[in-house]
Amino acid sequence: MTNHGATVTLLHHTPLFIADRAISKCWNKETAGECEVNYSRMARVALQYHHSSTIEHITYNFDIDGISRALLQELARHRMANLSVKSSRYTLKELRDEKSFFPDEDENLWRAESYVVLTDDSDTNSAIVQALENLRKLTKTTSNDISKYCLPEAYKTSLIWTINARALIGFLSLRTNKAALLEIRELAYEIYEQIPEDHKFLFTDSLYTEEES
Amino acid sequence: MTNHGATVTLLHHTPLFIADRAISKCWNKETAGECEVNYSRMARVALQYHHSSTIEHITYNFDIDGISRALLQELARHRMANLSVKSSRYTLKELRDEKSFFPDEDENLWRAESYVVLTDDSDTNSAIVQALENLRKLTKTTSNDISKYCLPEAYKTSLIWTINARALIGFLSLRTNKAALLEIRELAYEIYEQIPEDHKFLFTDSLYTEEES
Amino acid sequence: MTNHGATVTLLHHTPLFIADRAISKCWNKETAGECEVNYSRMARVALQYHHSSTIEHITYNFDIDGISRALLQELARHRMANLSVKSSRYTLKELRDEKSFFPDEDENLWRAESYVVLTDDSDTNSAIVQALENLRKLTKTTSNDISKYCLPEAYKTSLIWTINARALIGFLSLRTNKAALLEIRELAYEIYEQIPEDHKFLFTDSLYTEEES
Amino acid sequence: MTNHGATVTLLHHTPLFIADRAISKCWNKETAGECEVNYSRMARVALQYHHSSTIEHITYNFDIDGISRALLQELARHRMANLSVKSSRYTLKELRDEKSFFPDEDENLWRAESYVVLTDDSDTNSAIVQALENLRKLTKTTSNDISKYCLPEAYKTSLIWTINARALIGFLSLRTNKAALLEIRELAYEIYEQIPEDHKFLFTDSLYTEEES
Repeated sequence: MTNHGATVTLLHHTPLFIADRAISKCWNKETAGECEVNYSRMARVALQYHHSSTIEHITYNFDIDGISRALLQELARHRMANLSVKSSRYTLKELRDEKSFFPDEDENLWRAESYVVLTDDSDTNSAIVQALENLRKLTKTTSNDISKYCLPEAYKTSLIWTINARALIGFLSLRTNKAALLEIRELAYEIYEQIPEDHKFLFTDSLYTEEES
Repeated sequence: MTNHGATVTLLHHTPLFIADRAISKCWNKETAGECEVNYSRMARVALQYHHSSTIEHITYNFDIDGISRALLQELARHRMANLSVKSSRYTLKELRDEKSFFPDEDENLWRAESYVVLTDDSDTNSAIVQALENLRKLTKTTSNDISKYCLPEAYKTSLIWTINARALIGFLSLRTNKAALLEIRELAYEIYEQIPEDHKFLFTDSLYTEEES
Repeated sequence: MTNHGATVTLLHHTPLFIADRAISKCWNKETAGECEVNYSRMARVALQYHHSSTIEHITYNFDIDGISRALLQELARHRMANLSVKSSRYTLKELRDEKSFFPDEDENLWRAESYVVLTDDSDTNSAIVQALENLRKLTKTTSNDISKYCLPEAYKTSLIWTINARALIGFLSLRTNKAALLEIRELAYEIYEQIPEDHKFLFTDSLYTEEES
Repeated sequence: MTNHGATVTLLHHTPLFIADRAISKCWNKETAGECEVNYSRMARVALQYHHSSTIEHITYNFDIDGISRALLQELARHRMANLSVKSSRYTLKELRDEKSFFPDEDENLWRAESYVVLTDDSDTNSAIVQALENLRKLTKTTSNDISKYCLPEAYKTSLIWTINARALIGFLSLRTNKAALLEIRELAYEIYEQIPEDHKFLFTDSLYTEEES
């Protein structure tokens, strides 16, 4: 799979023993220990639909950098997550001091790539770079609120994304599916990679597998 | 205010007497009548923060057509609403049978305007039309999932948007503010216009007024 | 199944053609007609997990009367619904003018039943009626905010409950299950009965069936 | 204020620097440092309504023990929080091995208090203890799903409660108000006490003050 080049960093997560406490609480059972986890009980309980609220106590804070605004359109539909996104209204001025991105030769493409996601198709990339160049010029003379209308959706953005374990299961299930847009599939796998090893058992079964197709 | 040309249609709304019933229920008071509304009681109760959940029973279904994908990025952040949006992955083929949008003269601009939101700035409009023309050509040879990366954010989209009265108060309050992006301010006022006359008293105080500035 | 005696009334619902419009919008397809519904398309699309947001536009407003506060504890956990509930803090005074509920003989039980949900077990019913009688006496001398601490959970309450079609599928699926509390199972079936006939195909498959057990 | 005896323990919280990162991200500004916080910027930004989503990344996991089920009814209405509650259906058997709570004299009241919240009113307390004693006897002969109908709302429960900083501001604002039920006011202040010292500036202004009355 081509790597569209997003960087995903897990900044913080709630420790898993909080969900162990939640499960213990419902049935008034012993916790696994002060800060410990009964993994087999959690696998049995939390992954059943009607008890999955016990893992909503676990949240993950991701820093996601370098995704396209095309992907952001899809990410923002997951309403059970919180996101704080780099504002195009306030940050387009970053282009002002750049040199021209034309012609779309290697050195310029390489510089362009810090602003836009490039694809496997060179015609598409030319169109993206032309749009970027047009935008660069506009930022010198026009307000961001106007020039943002020519932002190509390849334009890179960045966000802090917080989601709880239950909602993340839903996200991974939908977005690792081969029907999903390639870039969001890659992102979904990157996110999965960043999940702490001892939490992964909660998510593994929601990843798409070929047999489903 | 320039009209960016979105069309807002209210398709359906919950009748207001449902909120009257909700208020009656909490205090076990008489309803205003079978399907009637005690307006003064509702104004008194529902607009207080701690009882505003009584108007969450009222939902509005809007058809919003012709907004830019730039605006969609902002609209999608309102997580207390439901939206079903025209998918760029499935609908870009609409460009395939178009003739060239070049040069960006009147007749072509006029045709372009059924696909993109134009601004007050001619340089920005030229860049938008060039992006549209590049996209049109790509749709003949490239899959939508690739070519969508050059979509300019001016590209028009369309959606069904459902929101309850409490969340709509929040939306109007934020988005009629003069700090908001011009296109979303216009949309907010269009939405307000579409609200049934006898519901408007719930929303009037949340519209931005100059005195606040 | 014993009927615990709740009354469910559907006060209003969004017409189904709104969801037809939402589905049409995503793929830019024809709607079924001005206010019509393509049922086979809806059955195919809306019941798939990843497109079920298209039926979130449909909301149902129910008046639910005569459920126990035990059941309310469970109902309130469904956070994707809005509820306006008869407040015990403001309405306990309704007991003040009642005569004694003692002894727990037929005529008194019959009067008690307008305030409490009775069970199939006479010992439990005696305890409930005794609690009701104690509460009745306290309302004459003590503030509601104190006396409410002896409310038995059998005490009847009443609410307006608004839920969208997607969340209602989840509710019916969980609460018609034979593991659910009997009273909430009955309520779930009552709610299903109240759904308009032409909407029922959205929900039928989520009802519990013996084969699942 | 009488202490109804709930115990609130903060089990975990997201560190504040995550919200600092979120704020930095929106405007593409420097973070305060690797894991540091620019407090004055956060006070300025996050407490404005239209940027308060930047503190939704911060969640708090509380263990709340010993509140009444009356209070739980109110707590569960805050839908922007997640709760895992001790189930009455599965845990009433805890009463089976208790001795009689009658007569309601000191030693028995003291034992009762580990199961029920007592009030300042002795008549109410007698009714509560009588209900507890009736319940104790029923648990020997009747299923929990039946006997739970005589649970007095004074019955103690326990839960894990997770809420984000933005929703917690709303909770404290509503529930420290002198119009709130005394027990939930006390709980709100207990929760405030448990908030880490360096987070408190986010919440102090939402506490009720006499001047508002």
